[in-house]
Order: sequence, then C-alpha cells, then structure tokens
Amino acid sequence: MRVMDVHPLVVDDVIMRALREDLGHGHDATSAALISMDSTARAVMRARKAGVLAGGMIAARAFTLCDPALSVDVHITEGAALAPGDDILTVSGPARSILTGERTALNIACHLSGIATQTARYVEAVKGTDARIVCTRKTLPGLRALQKYAVRVGGGHNHRFGLDDGILIKDNHIAMTGGVTAALALARRNAGHMVKVEIEVDTLAQLEEALAQGADVVLLDNMPPADLLQAVAMARGRAVTEASGGITLETVRAVAEAGVDIISVGALTHSVTALDLGLDTVL
Amino acid sequence: MRVMDVHPLVVDDVIMRALREDLGHGHDATSAALISMDSTARAVMRARKAGVLAGGMIAARAFTLCDPALSVDVHITEGAALAPGDDILTVSGPARSILTGERTALNIACHLSGIATQTARYVEAVKGTDARIVCTRKTLPGLRALQKYAVRVGGGHNHRFGLDDGILIKDNHIAMTGGVTAALALARRNAGHMVKVEIEVDTLAQLEEALAQGADVVLLDNMPPADLLQAVAMARGRAVTEASGGITLETVRAVAEAGVDIISVGALTHSVTALDLGLDTVL
Amino acid sequence: MRVMDVHPLVVDDVIMRALREDLGHGHDATSAALISMDSTARAVMRARKAGVLAGGMIAARAFTLCDPALSVDVHITEGAALAPGDDILTVSGPARSILTGERTALNIACHLSGIATQTARYVEAVKGTDARIVCTRKTLPGLRALQKYAVRVGGGHNHRFGLDDGILIKDNHIAMTGGVTAALALARRNAGHMVKVEIEVDTLAQLEEALAQGADVVLLDNMPPADLLQAVAMARGRAVTEASGGITLETVRAVAEAGVDIISVGALTHSVTALDLGLDTVL
Amino acid sequence: MRVMDVHPLVVDDVIMRALREDLGHGHDATSAALISMDSTARAVMRARKAGVLAGGMIAARAFTLCDPALSVDVHITEGAALAPGDDILTVSGPARSILTGERTALNIACHLSGIATQTARYVEAVKGTDARIVCTRKTLPGLRALQKYAVRVGGGHNHRFGLDDGILIKDNHIAMTGGVTAALALARRNAGHMVKVEIEVDTLAQLEEALAQGADVVLLDNMPPADLLQAVAMARGRAVTEASGGITLETVRAVAEAGVDIISVGALTHSVTALDLGLDTVL
Amino acid sequence: MRVMDVHPLVVDDVIMRALREDLGHGHDATSAALISMDSTARAVMRARKAGVLAGGMIAARAFTLCDPALSVDVHITEGAALAPGDDILTVSGPARSILTGERTALNIACHLSGIATQTARYVEAVKGTDARIVCTRKTLPGLRALQKYAVRVGGGHNHRFGLDDGILIKDNHIAMTGGVTAALALARRNAGHMVKVEIEVDTLAQLEEALAQGADVVLLDNMPPADLLQAVAMARGRAVTEASGGITLETVRAVAEAGVDIISVGALTHSVTALDLGLDTVL
Amino acid sequence: MRVMDVHPLVVDDVIMRALREDLGHGHDATSAALISMDSTARAVMRARKAGVLAGGMIAARAFTLCDPALSVDVHITEGAALAPGDDILTVSGPARSILTGERTALNIACHLSGIATQTARYVEAVKGTDARIVCTRKTLPGLRALQKYAVRVGGGHNHRFGLDDGILIKDNHIAMTGGVTAALALARRNAGHMVKVEIEVDTLAQLEEALAQGADVVLLDNMPPADLLQAVAMARGRAVTEASGGITLETVRAVAEAGVDIISVGALTHSVTALDLGLDTVL
Repeated sequence: MRVMDVHPLVVDDVIMRALREDLGHGHDATSAALISMDSTARAVMRARKAGVLAGGMIAARAFTLCDPALSVDVHITEGAALAPGDDILTVSGPARSILTGERTALNIACHLSGIATQTARYVEAVKGTDARIVCTRKTLPGLRALQKYAVRVGGGHNHRFGLDDGILIKDNHIAMTGGVTAALALARRNAGHMVKVEIEVDTLAQLEEALAQGADVVLLDNMPPADLLQAVAMARGRAVTEASGGITLETVRAVAEAGVDIISVGALTHSVTALDLGLDTVL
Repeated sequence: MRVMDVHPLVVDDVIMRALREDLGHGHDATSAALISMDSTARAVMRARKAGVLAGGMIAARAFTLCDPALSVDVHITEGAALAPGDDILTVSGPARSILTGERTALNIACHLSGIATQTARYVEAVKGTDARIVCTRKTLPGLRALQKYAVRVGGGHNHRFGLDDGILIKDNHIAMTGGVTAALALARRNAGHMVKVEIEVDTLAQLEEALAQGADVVLLDNMPPADLLQAVAMARGRAVTEASGGITLETVRAVAEAGVDIISVGALTHSVTALDLGLDTVL
Repeated sequence: MRVMDVHPLVVDDVIMRALREDLGHGHDATSAALISMDSTARAVMRARKAGVLAGGMIAARAFTLCDPALSVDVHITEGAALAPGDDILTVSGPARSILTGERTALNIACHLSGIATQTARYVEAVKGTDARIVCTRKTLPGLRALQKYAVRVGGGHNHRFGLDDGILIKDNHIAMTGGVTAALALARRNAGHMVKVEIEVDTLAQLEEALAQGADVVLLDNMPPADLLQAVAMARGRAVTEASGGITLETVRAVAEAGVDIISVGALTHSVTALDLGLDTVL
Repeated sequence: MRVMDVHPLVVDDVIMRALREDLGHGHDATSAALISMDSTARAVMRARKAGVLAGGMIAARAFTLCDPALSVDVHITEGAALAPGDDILTVSGPARSILTGERTALNIACHLSGIATQTARYVEAVKGTDARIVCTRKTLPGLRALQKYAVRVGGGHNHRFGLDDGILIKDNHIAMTGGVTAALALARRNAGHMVKVEIEVDTLAQLEEALAQGADVVLLDNMPPADLLQAVAMARGRAVTEASGGITLETVRAVAEAGVDIISVGALTHSVTALDLGLDTVL
Repeated sequence: MRVMDVHPLVVDDVIMRALREDLGHGHDATSAALISMDSTARAVMRARKAGVLAGGMIAARAFTLCDPALSVDVHITEGAALAPGDDILTVSGPARSILTGERTALNIACHLSGIATQTARYVEAVKGTDARIVCTRKTLPGLRALQKYAVRVGGGHNHRFGLDDGILIKDNHIAMTGGVTAALALARRNAGHMVKVEIEVDTLAQLEEALAQGADVVLLDNMPPADLLQAVAMARGRAVTEASGGITLETVRAVAEAGVDIISVGALTHSVTALDLGLDTVL
Repeated sequence: MRVMDVHPLVVDDVIMRALREDLGHGHDATSAALISMDSTARAVMRARKAGVLAGGMIAARAFTLCDPALSVDVHITEGAALAPGDDILTVSGPARSILTGERTALNIACHLSGIATQTARYVEAVKGTDARIVCTRKTLPGLRALQKYAVRVGGGHNHRFGLDDGILIKDNHIAMTGGVTAALALARRNAGHMVKVEIEVDTLAQLEEALAQGADVVLLDNMPPADLLQAVAMARGRAVTEASGGITLETVRAVAEAGVDIISVGALTHSVTALDLGLDTVL
C-alpha cells in the first residue's frame, strides 16, 4: 500500500485550519495560565480501541505545525492494525505546545483511523472476490482529500474526487437529456480523451442501452440480487460494473459475489465512527 | 430555540470551501457535457429517514452561492422533526447549477441533521431532569462552528468553542502544575474576569480540593455511579457539575438522575451518522 | 459548443487577483486625481485585429467586480469570429470605475482570445480528419482553468487538468519503474476505476508492449511520420493514439492524416500571442 | 544587474498557487501509483533552445516548496545566456517529489526566460542609443511582479507597476477632464510629491501644452517618425519622452535613434513565447 | 508575567500582512537599487524614549519572516522597563533584508510597547488596591490579539476577546428585551455553562435587579463616585464589579479606591501613543 | 477634496477581517441569547466630540457586510466638521445585526476620524504657507491604505505607500553605499522613469551634494531652524524640500514658514487618538 500520497500542501491546509479554529482569538487560555513557557514534557498517543491507523503522520505534523520546537516519533505505519494500548507516536518538547496541539492531532487521527478501520472491515468482507470497495463524493466539507486518503489506507479505492475528474451520469442527468442513448452521445462528444464515462442504470433495459453506447462504467443502483447477477453477465467484457445503494457490512459479500467490479459505500465517509485514541503524558 | 445564530460569514466560508473542493479544477464535467446553459429545472430536497432538520437554510445558501440565479424556498424550520418523504426545500433555476450544487448542499445538511437528530435523542433521554447535554471540542477540522450549531438545533448546549474561551484544567495540566490547588490558584490569578474555570477531578478527594479552591465547574470524569452521587452532593451550591466519559444513549439517563448539571458527549460531533436526505427533480 | 463551463467561483478568483494586483496599495492614482466621483461614462470594447473571441463574459464580469454599479452588455458570443472594429461589449456607469477596471478586463480578454484564435487555426488545419486538438499542462501559474476554457472555446479539447485527474506515464516514470510492462501493471493496480492510463512510447517495440498491457491511451512522442503511420495501425481498436512533440500549424495536418486521435500542442497555452482588443470611450 | 529583487514572499505566492493548481484534489496520481515513497532520483533542468535565463532560482524554489527534502543546485546566473544543452539546475531527492514539482518549475522558468530572452533582443537592438526598453501593465493576471522581474533580468526597465504608483493620463482621461491643461493641473494638485505625472499626447500641439504645464513624462503614442523627431527636440530638457504603439524588433532601432528616452513594448509581457527548457533524469 | 502567550500562528499572520502591505507590488525599490545582494550588515533596535517593551520577540520574528537568513538576538524581556538608549535586539545578515524588514518590525514594536507603557502607568496608579486594569473590544481591525497581549505585558488583564466568548448585556440589549430581569433570564437560559454573564447598569435600582438575577459581573457605567461606593457595597460577595466610562490616569485611582474589582479603559487600545524606538546600523 | 478614492475591494478586506475577528468562533453570544431573529431596530451613529469625519461610508459598509438586510443612510460627507451630537448615519433592520456590527463600524470610524481630525489641525496650523502636511510609512499593520485615506480626508497628502513606489535613501542606505553621490548615482541608474528619488540629508554639505546629483526631493531631517532656512534657499528651483523629525502642532508653523514644500508627521498615523463616536438606538 502507498501511504501519504496526499500531498503535504493539502494536509497542512487542513491542519492549519484546525489549529486556528481551536485557537480562536489566538491563545490557549489554560496552558498560558498554568504552564510556564520553558517547561517541557513528553506524551504518547495511544490506541484505546482496536482498529487500523490512518493519519499518524498527519497527527505528527499537527504537533510540528503547532510548534516547530516539538519533536515527534511515529512508531506505527499507516494502515497497520492497532491493538488497545499500542503506542502510535511520541511527542516531546515545550509542554504548552503539546497541550495546545493535542486536540487537533487527536481529532484528525481519530477521524481518519475511524474511516480506515471501517473500510478495512468492508475489504475483509469481500476478500477472495474481485470486488473493490470505493468511497463516494459524500464527504465532509474541506476534508475530502484526507477522507479519501484514509479509505486507501484501509485498503479501499476512490471513485471520482470531484465534479471535474470524470463523467457520472445520474438519473437526473438522463431525465434532462432525453434518455440513456442521448446522454451517452453527448458525454462522448464532449469528454476529454482521458475522461471515463459512467452512467447510472436502474433497469436491465437501460443497461443494454448503456452498453450499446459504449459506457466505460455502469452504475447498478439499488438493483435486486437477481437483476444484479444478470447485469454482471450482460456487462462482462463490455464495461466495468459498480453496485451502490445502501450496502452494509452485512450485505456487501453477497453483492461482491454477484461479480461486480466495484462496490461504492457512501457511509465510509459520511457516517464515520471515530477510532478512540488518546494522549498520555509520560515521564 | 434560536436558530441560525452562527454568523453567515462563517457559514459561507464552509460552503465556499466545499463548493471549490467539489469543483476541483473548476468545472462540472458531467453537467457541462450534457445540460445546455439555458435549461432550467426544479428539485426538492427530501428526507428519506426520520430525524431532526439542521442546516436546511445552509443547504439553501449553498445553492445560491453556487449560482445567485437559483431561487430556493425552505419549507421546514430548523430543529423540526422530519418524517421520511418530507419536503425540506425547493430549488429552481438553471439546471446545471442545481446539479453542481446538489452534493455540497446535501453533504452539509445530512451531516448537520445527523448531529441534531442524535442530540435530540440524548436530550429526550434526560427529559425531566435538570441535566443539559453538551458537546465537546472533539469536532472535525473546519466544521466546529457548524457542528456546535447543530447541537444547539437538536436541543443541546455547547461547552467551550476553543482553547481561548474558558479554562479547562485536565489531568495533564494538574500533573504539570503540582496538583489541584496549585493549578486552580494559577488559573484564578491569570484568568480574565469573564473566564470560568473548570477542572477535571478523578476522585472525591480531588473534588473536595477543587471546591475548596473555588472552581466554577467540576468535571467528574468516568466516575462510578456511587461516587457520582456523592460528588453531586458535595458540589451542590458550590460548583456546577459536569459528567463525562463514554456516556451513551443507554447510560445517559442514569447519569442525569445522579443530579449532574452538565453531561458532555464527544460522540455527538466526532462520530456522526448522516441523516439520509436526497434531492429529487420535479416537474 | 458549450461556453462558460468554467465555474464563476474560479473565474472570480482570477479576476479579483488581477484587480488587486493592479490596485496595489489600493487606489487608482490617475482616476482619483482627475475624475470626479459622480462623473459617468460609456465605453466599448472593440476588436482591433481579427480572431476568435474568448473571455468576453469574463471581461464583463471584471467590470462588475470592480464596481457593481457598472452595467455591461456583451454583444458577441464566446467563440464567434471577430473582425477588426467589431464591438464586443459596452460598459457604462461611474467613469472612474470604467478606467480602473479597463486594463484587467482587457488583459484577460486579449489573452484568452489569443488562445482561442490560435486553437481555431489548428482545428481548422485538421478539418475533415478525426483528430482532436488538445492542450497540455504547460500553462501559466494560476491561469490553467481559464486557459483550458479558451482552448475549448476555440474548438479544441483538454488533456488532463492536473496531476490528479488521470495517469500519464512519461519516460522518467518508465525509467524509474523498470519498463513499460512494470509501469502499466502498477498503474492498473493502483488507479481508480474512473481513471484512464496513458503511456508515452518512443518506439514501436514499446508501443507493442503498452498495447499488450492494455493502456487506454498511447502517447506517440516525436515519432517520425513512417513510425507514426505504423503506430496508428498497430493501435487501432486497442488504444487511443495521441501525437505530440513540436507540432506546428505547418505540420499538424500531416500528423492528423496519419490517423491519430489526439494531437497535443503545448504552445496553445505556453506561448500565447494576445489578440489585440481595445476600449474606446463613446458618447 | 540586480537579480531576485522581487521579494520571496511574492515569489512563493505564485509558486504555491501553481503547485496547488496542478495538484487539484491533492495528489499526483501517476507518481503515487508508480514510484515508491523512498525512491530517490536526480534530474537536470536543461535548455533546449538558446536564450536568456530568468527564473532559475524560482524554479529551484518550486522544487523545495513542493518538498523541503529536495536539494537543488542552480548552475547558471539569472540573466546569463543559455545555449542548447546548458545545465540550469540539478535537483535531487525523493523521486516522487521531483516528478510532482517538475511541471510547475518548468512552466515558470520557461515563461520568465521567454520574457527575458525577448527583452534582451530589444535591448540589443537599441544598443548604443540612450533609449531604455520598458514593459507595460499589459501583463497576465497574478503574474505581474514576476513578469516585470523577467524584463529587468533581460536588461529592460519597468514602467508603472499598477494603478497606484504613478499618474499616467491617457486619451480617455483627457477627454473626460476637458483637455491637457486641465488634466495636468488636476494631476499636479492631487499627486503626492513622490508621484511623477505622465501624459499621452497624440499631436505636437498637445505636446507643447503638456510641456508648458510641466508634465514629467510625455507619452508619444503612435507618432509618425517625422513628428517623433520634432517631439523629441521640443521636449529636450523639459520632460522625459516615451514612445509606444506597436513597436517591433524591426522598428525599435529607428524609434530609439529618434532620441526618445523610453520605448514601451506591451508584447514583452502580453505575448510571450516560452523558452524551451526540459528536465532530464540523470544517473 | 506570562509573555508570548499569543500563539505564533496568529502573530505570523499580522507580520505577513504588514510585510506584504509594505512590499506592495513586491519589491523594495530603494534597497534593490542601492544595496548588492551579497552585502551584509548589523543593526540594533534601540529605545529612544523610556517605556515598557512589548513585541520585541515579534519584531525579531518580523525580520526572520522577511528573510530566514537574518539572525536576531533579543536582549530584553517582554514587559521590562526601557530607558532611552537601551538595546532591544540585534539583527544581522543580508543588508537588503534588514532594510526591507525594518519598518514592519518597528511599527509593530512601537505600537505594542506604546500600549504596554500606558497600561503599566494605569496599573501603577492603582497599586495597592484590588482593582485590575482591563482593556475592551475597542481595538483596531486585525490587531486585537496583539493589542490585548500588549495589555497583559503591561500588567493589565483582558475583558472579552470578541462577541463570542462571554455575554455582556449593554443598555441597547436591555431596552430591546424589556428590562434587566428579562434580559438576565434569557441570558441564563441560553448561555453555555462556561460563559459568564455581565450586565451594564446605570442606576442602583438596576444594580439591585441585576444582583437579584444572579449576574456574574455588573458593569457600573459612568457612575458618580458616591453611587459607585454604594454599588460596590451592594455587590460585595454577590458579583464582580467593573467600572467604566472615560476613566483617565488622573481619575483611575479614585475609582479603584471605591473598591471595584475591574476598571476597563478603552483608550488603552483605541488611542495608542507609539513608543519611540529606532533601528541603528552598527559596525 | 476627493473622498473614497481607496478602492472598495481594499476597504472590504479590512472590514471583513474586523468582523471575523470580533465574531471569533462565529457567533454573537449576547445577541443570540437575547434578541429574537425577527426583531428589528434603528440606531444612529453620533459624534460625542468635535472633529472631522472620516470613514462614515466605511462604517456604513461594515453594517451591510455584516448583514445585507441592513439599510444605512449616511448623513454627513467625508471630511466635514462634526460637532458633538451630530448624526453621522442611521442604520435600520435586523436588531441582532446592528448589535453585531456596531463595534466594528465604530472602531473603524473612530480611528479614521481621529486621524482626519488631527491632520486637519496640522493643515490649519500651516494655512497660508505653501507647505503640505504628509504622513509616513509609520502605520499600523494592515491599515495603511485606510490610514492614508484618512490623512487625505483631513486635508493632508501622502508620502510613499510602500517600499515599492518610490526611492527614499535614508542614512543607513548612504552609509552602506559610500556616500550621497554614489547612492544617488545608483538610484538614478536603476530607478524606473516614473520613480522619484528622495534622499535624507543631515547637513548642508550633504544637501549640496544631493542637489548636484539631481535628487528630486531632499529630506531635511531634524535640521535646526537656521539650517532649514538656508537649506530651503539652496534647494529652491532644484529640488522639492521635505522637513521631518519630531514636528508637533506647536512647532509645525515655524517649519512651514521656513519655506519647505513638505512636512511629514509620523504621529498622524502611529499615535492616533480616536474620535469619540457612539451608536444610539432610536425609536
């Protein structure tokens, strides 16, 4: 797996936004009142629950952006399994700065690890099939690049990153352009040669039309199992197949075994349960 | 309840960030390829699950920031209960712009409504007691003001907004300053007269020390039920009491009945399940 | 042709940057010294040379962002042919603001029209063949979205918009990964299902290897005419072919007639001759 | 010559904008898919055509802003002549980062070197006369400071940087204020004592009026050669003379020999032919 | 005293804004024209008048943000008394950069030291009483965090930092909500448990009402001395008392001796006399 | 006088920064707690002291940027004399928004009016002489454009706006370049033709050298009265003369009567006493 393939410029933007947000008018009232400027400390970020780590290096970066005088050692690789009590990183230096940066570092690592942990569960559930688990554009404002990175860390893949990097024709687009054939013709004419075209189909009739028009990918939305099987058979060798629509950890294996190439799960990024991590002062 | 008390300048920042993030290199490839510039449409944002609406007006604003030529009517008040199928807002105008703004509008409204919905469940669970449900600083980068707003919409209250607007002495601070008494003395000396001082205590002995030093609020962290009852009795009339630490919908009522004033629940903002809302084109 | 498919948020960013850059410390010294605040005027933007208009609506927007009290009528459609003397737009309102916004409006429209004009010449040169003229990532800092828009206005198409929206394996990548086969295998494994994979090949042997590995697009870089013909024959039905490398208005037709699908011309955006437009005060 | 007198804060802004623009949603898809994080490389930026180097240090800065772990040696001084094949800089370090930063570094250096190269040709053409070659405000959005820097590197000088740092009364201003005399009187009364006043004149009669009113600089716009000679004679010792209007490499010497002090050439910045530079991986 | 408790992220924002503002179009015309790039120098920032230093470390940071190649030693602690001629800091390195950063460094240090100096006079004037000197929200745009820091350096304390971190009910609020009792009831119901509530009262009757409603702090605005004494007596043990309204160095002692806890002085930040500091080149 | 010649884009930046700074985490706690969203009000900004108004229109803009639903009428022209009690503007609309915007609007108008008032005193003091009062670069971070605007409103003029728009050779520059003659030669060679060159001289010998080298402006720094008279005589017809150095309202007339053209007063912007303005709710 390739970690940290989201560029540091983008990572830093998110961290800086979080630090400024937490600082508000510009000071950490508690630390300023209690901790002398020259006091130093050492703390360890630890897993309190089992899961998959994502964002350990980003949490480390949060501390050094908060104060370049902090030094941080990251002990665990992105994507590795965490057991409760595992040490993730050690930060040492000015005590005030550790306390000021703590919440930002934790908020990011808990969120991203939550995503990676859940993604890994889906990936595990479809193990042995050819299906890939992918996330969607149902992400949280300003966090898309990091959320999608966490999905990759968890073993998943990414769908489009935005409105600009692929054509995905949904039901509303079809309705407004007069049908699958017309929509795909327009898409082909206007799309760049590096742009794939995917289209959502609800019925096998629509699917046949889409395949005839040379869609690169067909999105089989909320299809009943029987239809899904037949759709996969129809599309084989003609287009990539993607299943979507309320797929859960309980149902995902069946969908994968139907033979689809791609299974998209919006909940990976829109409904994240944070992984419980904490920061403990050490001597 | 007072809704939309988060200032539009702050709301607009979040929306603009989301729109730019979705636009990436600056265009909606699908709409540009399929929909003519002068085509118009009309769509309704609808609840697909039951819950509490938060961010309806923000979703409306997302559409108008995407294109000032869009007009939006919001049909449901912030904080109102949603049943599946309820119409939240209607947007009409340039078809391309509706499609371009759709995901941003939905992502925000689904997230904020998810927070309000869950908050309302906690508030309902403690109904009849004096306890207030509050959120924490365990929020997602760049989204704190909106997340905390959604908590208020759901009937909850807010704890500190950042490091700057209150003093909260946690175990690490106590360790570094030599104890509860020393920490509170420093806090009192340095805090502004508009700043309240809260301190985390793990034992009844620490609590007594904190009360003696005049803490405004005492944070009873992960206290066993018996201790909690005694702590509340000790603090009555001397300090506000706050309970925290892994409190769930199942356990919150018992905590409230112990008599604490404040119950803080980090999961309200760090582990949000989006409320399912969708956008349907209408004739 | 679909014009103005670059989103206004992105357009406004470029305009605002230009206006602020021209205002420097914040004032138009000449207009402030000479023109009274309540004086009004009327001016026409006119073509001084023949060409293809791009950015007329953006120039109009520059005036209204400079001063919302200005009103602007655009007389010519994006992509239309301009003859010397043709009126492009009329702006009227506060005289000072017309003079303050003039240079920003002209600089943008002259640059984009220069791109559209040259693109149209290339498109005309390959008329009747199946080849598409595309631009590259050889663009000017901060202007990529607008430059690529102007290429579309001129009848061309766009290659990748950035490092993120497609995989393009160049010679350096091949060298570092141990050859065409290895590189394409890695690309396939890691690329999202919406991402096309293109690879640069210098020889027919490399081409055969690339086709065998299922490249979506093959970039035939600086190939001699004879090789190009053979390459096109080899790739037919297996991959899209793109020719690149110092192609000029003089040589482009021959390349197109060799049968390639795509001809990329970096000079369309890196070496732009502005189209001469001016602003004349009218009574 | 004084190079790099544009401040690094301003240079960094342009570079960061270009890097973010190229990264789009935040990742380099090709490098992430193909190149391992710990792979290192070494590459040389080389001239492919002859010209004058400008922006070598800025290209170097682009690599280090892309990744501080990259080290860069610049081999050639700003303003030096480049022969095809000359090494400009060597960059070494993480292979991914070299590939990610390559296009941004090249785009800037090719553009600025193109400006310096063409400026140097104009400067050479007027060698031995007293005329200075200057650029104008016909620059590209967001690039003015760098473009004007490149003109200086090429041996030229700069006119005003913006609307704020000098008064330049053009025909439209004259028309709106009732004539040369009235305009200059207003300019004198309102201009700061550090602000020079220049006025455009189309005829010798206007010139006489401008000189009588004490203009610091007179802009002789599109004047026929005979008028130009007479204008220079009239203005000698009374005002600086500037010639402008469609001056080319072919005509510039004649204009200079007419004795003007300043020759302004908008094309230096509005119609730039990039200098061809490339990046080659080395062992 | 705890200095530099304003976070560096916030400090850097102010410095960068000032540097960019001074650089305008991006260059220091004088230094670029006169000083060679490799010339180095050494200069000392010195007090020309007596006062209290604030912002010495910020001035040092201004030099290093202007050019990381500059090295700066700060000789005097924040909050220390300055006598005319005292050396504050020594900066050495590239001569151009010292000259470019000089004005920004001085403007900030002179302004902040002016605030600290005046604050210290007020603090001295009330020495021996229990009164604290605090500043208000009457600050200058973009400078609030630094101005409030300078007040702390001078021995003062801070009132609210913004509209968000405390409730302060002024006469207009009272009028709009129907009186002191109603206003305080609303405040109590809606305020978070970490938020103090202060209310402005003009009469002793209003004061009694405010105390009865449990205001945390009462603002005694422009009260005559006799009333002030009585107000303090009434509030003792029930609420913190704050006096405000045109209090000067001449009148502040009397107000403090009346027994109020807090004396707020808007002029500390809205009407600042800069402390005279200069920068001298040394050998 | 020409008011509002600072461009709205720049004005809006300052206002937005101030509003965001006051909103902190994004809400007005007091108004949100007390005032219902649909309550409306009306308030008048009034002078409490006599002075000269500057920033009335900017204060109005602050209210509308805070809430476009507010409507504002400005009753007094920029630069007009204010008597205590004079109404400056009336704002009406949503009550909450008036209260939220109040402090930002007042802080700006009080500061700018303070500058204009003091400038007007200096201008009045030199009435009948030929001397102009100008401000310097001793301004507050981020406020230069507005502060210099207020000086113009008060009847003064502006010196350089930044490091980029003029050459001012100070003693440090002279020392580093080997003397007045060498420094001026370098300045002449490198300065653009629109750039004036000013040089600081401390002695009449230096002055003679500067005049011989053709300085445009000579800065007579802290010269004794007798020298000043002689310096003016020497410079007459050869250079503009500027006096500076601790000039006060008491000493300025004598300096002006010595015959200098320009008198620069840093205190106009670095040591501002706010003009007392207030906002009163009206029925």
